[in-house]
Amino acid sequence: MKLWDKGIDIDKTIEAFTVGNDREIDIYIAKYDILASIAHAKMLEKIEIISSEELQQLLEGLEVLLAQINDGTFVIDSHFEDVHSKIEYELIQKYGDVGKKIHTARSRNDQVLVALHLFYKDNLNSIKNKTHTLFDTLLQLADAYKEALLPGYTHLQVAMPSSFGLWFSAYAELLIDDVYLLDAALKTVDQNPLGSAAGYGSSFPIDRNFTTEVLGFHTLKYNVVAAQMSRGKSERTVAMALGSLANTLARFAMDVCLYMSQNFDFIAFPDALTTGSSIMPHKKNPDVFELIRGKCNKIQALYTEVLLITNNLPSGYHRDFQLLKEHMITAFEDLKNVLEILNHSIKQVQLKEIDFTDEKYKYLTTVDSINNLVMNGVSFREAYKKIGKQVEDGTYSSEISKKHSHIGSIHNLCLKKIKVKFPV
Amino acid sequence: MKLWDKGIDIDKTIEAFTVGNDREIDIYIAKYDILASIAHAKMLEKIEIISSEELQQLLEGLEVLLAQINDGTFVIDSHFEDVHSKIEYELIQKYGDVGKKIHTARSRNDQVLVALHLFYKDNLNSIKNKTHTLFDTLLQLADAYKEALLPGYTHLQVAMPSSFGLWFSAYAELLIDDVYLLDAALKTVDQNPLGSAAGYGSSFPIDRNFTTEVLGFHTLKYNVVAAQMSRGKSERTVAMALGSLANTLARFAMDVCLYMSQNFDFIAFPDALTTGSSIMPHKKNPDVFELIRGKCNKIQALYTEVLLITNNLPSGYHRDFQLLKEHMITAFEDLKNVLEILNHSIKQVQLKEIDFTDEKYKYLTTVDSINNLVMNGVSFREAYKKIGKQVEDGTYSSEISKKHSHIGSIHNLCLKKIKVKFPV
Amino acid sequence: MKLWDKGIDIDKTIEAFTVGNDREIDIYIAKYDILASIAHAKMLEKIEIISSEELQQLLEGLEVLLAQINDGTFVIDSHFEDVHSKIEYELIQKYGDVGKKIHTARSRNDQVLVALHLFYKDNLNSIKNKTHTLFDTLLQLADAYKEALLPGYTHLQVAMPSSFGLWFSAYAELLIDDVYLLDAALKTVDQNPLGSAAGYGSSFPIDRNFTTEVLGFHTLKYNVVAAQMSRGKSERTVAMALGSLANTLARFAMDVCLYMSQNFDFIAFPDALTTGSSIMPHKKNPDVFELIRGKCNKIQALYTEVLLITNNLPSGYHRDFQLLKEHMITAFEDLKNVLEILNHSIKQVQLKEIDFTDEKYKYLTTVDSINNLVMNGVSFREAYKKIGKQVEDGTYSSEISKKHSHIGSIHNLCLKKIKVKFPV
Amino acid sequence: MKLWDKGIDIDKTIEAFTVGNDREIDIYIAKYDILASIAHAKMLEKIEIISSEELQQLLEGLEVLLAQINDGTFVIDSHFEDVHSKIEYELIQKYGDVGKKIHTARSRNDQVLVALHLFYKDNLNSIKNKTHTLFDTLLQLADAYKEALLPGYTHLQVAMPSSFGLWFSAYAELLIDDVYLLDAALKTVDQNPLGSAAGYGSSFPIDRNFTTEVLGFHTLKYNVVAAQMSRGKSERTVAMALGSLANTLARFAMDVCLYMSQNFDFIAFPDALTTGSSIMPHKKNPDVFELIRGKCNKIQALYTEVLLITNNLPSGYHRDFQLLKEHMITAFEDLKNVLEILNHSIKQVQLKEIDFTDEKYKYLTTVDSINNLVMNGVSFREAYKKIGKQVEDGTYSSEISKKHSHIGSIHNLCLKKIKVKFPV
Repeated sequence: MKLWDKGIDIDKTIEAFTVGNDREIDIYIAKYDILASIAHAKMLEKIEIISSEELQQLLEGLEVLLAQINDGTFVIDSHFEDVHSKIEYELIQKYGDVGKKIHTARSRNDQVLVALHLFYKDNLNSIKNKTHTLFDTLLQLADAYKEALLPGYTHLQVAMPSSFGLWFSAYAELLIDDVYLLDAALKTVDQNPLGSAAGYGSSFPIDRNFTTEVLGFHTLKYNVVAAQMSRGKSERTVAMALGSLANTLARFAMDVCLYMSQNFDFIAFPDALTTGSSIMPHKKNPDVFELIRGKCNKIQALYTEVLLITNNLPSGYHRDFQLLKEHMITAFEDLKNVLEILNHSIKQVQLKEIDFTDEKYKYLTTVDSINNLVMNGVSFREAYKKIGKQVEDGTYSSEISKKHSHIGSIHNLCLKKIKVKFPV
Repeated sequence: MKLWDKGIDIDKTIEAFTVGNDREIDIYIAKYDILASIAHAKMLEKIEIISSEELQQLLEGLEVLLAQINDGTFVIDSHFEDVHSKIEYELIQKYGDVGKKIHTARSRNDQVLVALHLFYKDNLNSIKNKTHTLFDTLLQLADAYKEALLPGYTHLQVAMPSSFGLWFSAYAELLIDDVYLLDAALKTVDQNPLGSAAGYGSSFPIDRNFTTEVLGFHTLKYNVVAAQMSRGKSERTVAMALGSLANTLARFAMDVCLYMSQNFDFIAFPDALTTGSSIMPHKKNPDVFELIRGKCNKIQALYTEVLLITNNLPSGYHRDFQLLKEHMITAFEDLKNVLEILNHSIKQVQLKEIDFTDEKYKYLTTVDSINNLVMNGVSFREAYKKIGKQVEDGTYSSEISKKHSHIGSIHNLCLKKIKVKFPV
Repeated sequence: MKLWDKGIDIDKTIEAFTVGNDREIDIYIAKYDILASIAHAKMLEKIEIISSEELQQLLEGLEVLLAQINDGTFVIDSHFEDVHSKIEYELIQKYGDVGKKIHTARSRNDQVLVALHLFYKDNLNSIKNKTHTLFDTLLQLADAYKEALLPGYTHLQVAMPSSFGLWFSAYAELLIDDVYLLDAALKTVDQNPLGSAAGYGSSFPIDRNFTTEVLGFHTLKYNVVAAQMSRGKSERTVAMALGSLANTLARFAMDVCLYMSQNFDFIAFPDALTTGSSIMPHKKNPDVFELIRGKCNKIQALYTEVLLITNNLPSGYHRDFQLLKEHMITAFEDLKNVLEILNHSIKQVQLKEIDFTDEKYKYLTTVDSINNLVMNGVSFREAYKKIGKQVEDGTYSSEISKKHSHIGSIHNLCLKKIKVKFPV
Repeated sequence: MKLWDKGIDIDKTIEAFTVGNDREIDIYIAKYDILASIAHAKMLEKIEIISSEELQQLLEGLEVLLAQINDGTFVIDSHFEDVHSKIEYELIQKYGDVGKKIHTARSRNDQVLVALHLFYKDNLNSIKNKTHTLFDTLLQLADAYKEALLPGYTHLQVAMPSSFGLWFSAYAELLIDDVYLLDAALKTVDQNPLGSAAGYGSSFPIDRNFTTEVLGFHTLKYNVVAAQMSRGKSERTVAMALGSLANTLARFAMDVCLYMSQNFDFIAFPDALTTGSSIMPHKKNPDVFELIRGKCNKIQALYTEVLLITNNLPSGYHRDFQLLKEHMITAFEDLKNVLEILNHSIKQVQLKEIDFTDEKYKYLTTVDSINNLVMNGVSFREAYKKIGKQVEDGTYSSEISKKHSHIGSIHNLCLKKIKVKFPV
């Protein structure tokens, strides 16, 4: 059953090609389609396109379907092109002519659009919450391990002293920047597009303020052409925000993999979190963190996919947009999963003993040595040369300073200040 | 069952996360894993690691599994991490100790690697064949419609006369360039990586020339580190080649969509190939071609995904590579599908009557007019000015020339010469 | 002169390779480096690392250099690796030992970082202002041409009535979403990184709150490791925001190019804004808009470049980051330029007469016809079938409705409401 | 001076915007434009559009300009839009009407196209040669250091023994795959597009076989529409090929940076190849290799830029294509530079002593131990368990095997076989 059936037989091969896997994907947005249909029906009654009796029937029918969705019994079988045809069909089956009225004053374009906006909004909030949880975990780890030193690297070369406290809370503070983008994405999708119909509005006197309020949108996308063009645009923005967060998580996972290498040997995890090899019996591999990194890289690639599909197309709806849904949905699923696994795993981190007297860490403190000279009156550039000469001569001897106490440094992590920066 | 089980309980959440959807994806490479296992077993017998009786048992077991794969009864149930564990398990169940010998002198790394190489090779050849079919179709259409003129555009502005013959055969000739890349990708994957084990080879005296020959590889990747590093690298190369072809198809689909617009109105398709609207009863939309364009754009994005997953990682296997499989496989499926649908649809193209006397096509022939002056002795730049003045004055009158007869122009399409350029 | 000269001859080829074109690029950030150096010097005096006399000398020297930058006489000659070496050199030349103190308690890493943050902040604000100007222009055009109808398209097929008012103000409203991302980017770079030194802070008792205030940053990036890691991260975020805006502008340019085509013929521009052809004297090409589109596409590609350079690198500074500067700076220059040119050009748009009685626009009003039936009591789905039949039969006759009056539709553009949505 | 000047004043702001930096960029293709103009002029004489006297004048004029280009005195001053206007202007200045004939039967479109094809072909060959040189260097290093062992890693975890011989020659063999793509790109650009004019050919009886032969193209792009569409397409293919090579070089540089880290400490370079820090006097940073990695990542991003500019545009020339030139040219310059620097640097590599008795390398040989058991009759899976138990118990003791002797393994590098694989 198609919403646009005109009695012409469509080529079967073509039909399979155009429908694709919409039926499976649409399960994820079914709930939001029902919620938007409820709001739309209420609005139709308000502007007297349907009667209150008709509204009651539609609401009843929609609630039944919503219950099916919630308990997992809702199925889009192969007679239907998508979730939207399925729902309209069920209403017509049950209520006849009343069902045939639900599509009044809307088009499948704005129907999908509003469902996707609701889906994105809900999922972005969920991502933000899980990010907040991870943020808290990282701050707790920073606090717990604030005394544990770690070599700091630049150019992958031993540079200056760092600490586990610095490392954990650095990633916490970086997550805040990602939340700025999540919030921008939330603003973008928190604008009601319903009422834009096929992208040019309608000759019905629909009440868009009413649906905006019922659906809990912060505002509406006034211009109907702009509303339609938010298809593709909202996906790009959301993909950017997810990609930014994914980048931070991937980089953290990269650090974990490096620090677990025998050549760094800074951290370990319980065996239950590691994976073996099919031929090397000694292996305890960091597959979890490699998969976090890899999945986050996949999520970062989503933006390019959305961009390539939509770029250089003139305004107005194009069917290509239908292909955006699938990987947007899997990206949300993957990212929620990654956030949970990372939060679950990182709590089990085990710090290894680092031998700072090892030859390779000998020059970790040259800057502190320079600074000591400067505090005794030598100019910085002269002190630099002096210590440099000791290094060349082999006469330099290391001295760990306890003086890193300025804002945000080893002995002054400002965890509370970072904690309150998180935008709630 | 894991190939690396060490008697330690693995965290269930972690296990679900690491296994992911490998079981579903691995069905696509199961056949190739069996073929490579057969070759590996034969080689083990040749170098006397197993006896010929043991080989017979392994071959028998593998043939049974291959038959299951071919008739669709092969299932990787949830006890198994992947197809490789499943196969080894079945062999051990049936033949005990003999089954425990199949993994001798290989690692899951080179096992997956060789299966993927065989999969890519087979599928690249299939893509190349379908491209050849489309190429022939386009040349046939060019020949059939070689007399039908078409306005040519530059900057989307009416420019000079073109023709349907030129248009169809242009895309045919462009496909040849895509085949150059498919052939380069084929060369890349036509090198046997089996024997590289975990990426550093083996202390067994394995005979890599033998497996190369049995598996029908053109050559082998000699260096075992290079063989392992072809994981990721071969995916990048294949993704490039698929993306290049996808780009050509997407662009053709874009032309089709534009030419079907009422404002161009150059071509149409039977109703059975078009799609309707949920609110506009007059619509006959080119969804098929929009989806071809969109799917091809998705395929073009694959390269970035592969690149982001693999980029900046040091040499040696990383688990991230396991994530490359999924979209490589779907890209092949999608592209084969697109090639078939496009070939099926384009044959049904209907040419519309174009009114070249319409005002908008008035200046289509200014260059021909200039050329006529030049043939009468005026220098090109003077002739350009003269005709330019007529256009400004409104005194220019159009004259369609029949003289476009040089190689590759409207009246000399060189279809046979293009036909033989296709690299077979 | 290098800040790290250790008396060893560096390979000349290598030196040329590593310095690259930093000297030319650094001119763009020279001003910001001076401003940050002034703040740093004041802080050094406040914490008594330098005396107030020394501070006066440094301020004097820095002001002289700032004046040179402002009047265009500042040159980074080939003795210097970059702008930072140049400035320190000049101070040492003039004030001897005092100059050698300016680098106390900072590293080139945080020196570049803070200069780039200031540069990004300044330029993002400039981009936002120019976007606001274009937004206003588009709203003015929407108001001026609100009565002019335009065919609306879906799938590039004639769909429903639209208007120039809708078209212009759609792009205005979409710019608001881009500003959400610009604002997120602004938040990201409005956090002082100075004091992070090489990425691990310092043993000096530096006062980071003080420099934060002097430099006018909204807050600081507390964690020094996070501050260092904002190199790369801030570029990704800024590139996303610029890319999002560029996408909107590119799409508008695409519409313009299509609407200027003789086959649409909806708009034109004065000859002075069009470009000719080397062989077709009749051509008036939309090169300006094609170049806007192309340059915006280039800007959209910047994100991928930044991502590929930084992705999968572990934490800590890497020299690769130095390569990010160049195209970040050119992207800002290009985008400011594009915004100005677009604003300048679009004001000169000329609306062409569109003949809505033309056959190709015949079905533009089928939805209005359906809606009229619905208002007379027919259910939507029945009315759809009825009008659909008329279209099939050839009995349909067009009727332009004046009823598009709901929020955001043709006759109710809500321009004032859109105007106040712009986030200032 | 413009080739299309029509006596209308063009807006100065617009002119600056449209010309952009074409004048600087065009210097790189000037030589190829002259060579193609010479071939075109000869062809015009052959088909009797110009006389042999006229040809002599044109050749003389073009040779003078070619000499200027070769000795660096050729300048495109600000009167000219691009190199093409400049050349035509010079010919007209000198030879009057004869100069006005050079543009007969061609358009700026195919003029630029053929010049770019010649530029790409020349530069691809140059890249291929430099790749061959690096390939030889890597094979020499592999041979020189074939006895030096190196720990092999999977998942960044110590895995199995590798060697410097394996490492160097792995990258050599991988370069061969990159050359397959360079060769595909060469085939793509080795097809003469001259004669396609504005993309639709010409009414002159031009002899395209003649220019193909004179210019040394392997074949021609027959179809004129296909020829025009190779603008953008050839850039995508070339960018892919350059990107593939860049990826290999970047990955090698990543290995170098990691191996230079004190925590790996496998290799070093003379001080003259390292770079210092502005605050850490002990630093000897691998900036050269980080910049190789970073520049190669930039080159990898080029493909996305080309794709975003060209994607989803319908057939026919668009001005956007003009923007492709700049970064194509810089990518060639950068990649040639990177290949030279890498070849120059890697020869100076210094191998450090690796202490294989160190605790962290203890399990490097577990697979060899398993294999020894297997050679004594234990099944692989049983032997795996046995050695695994020793590892758990702490009873495992390491035994370096000398048996890695199969094709492509540590003690059988097959350097000669790899050497002859390079496609010449």
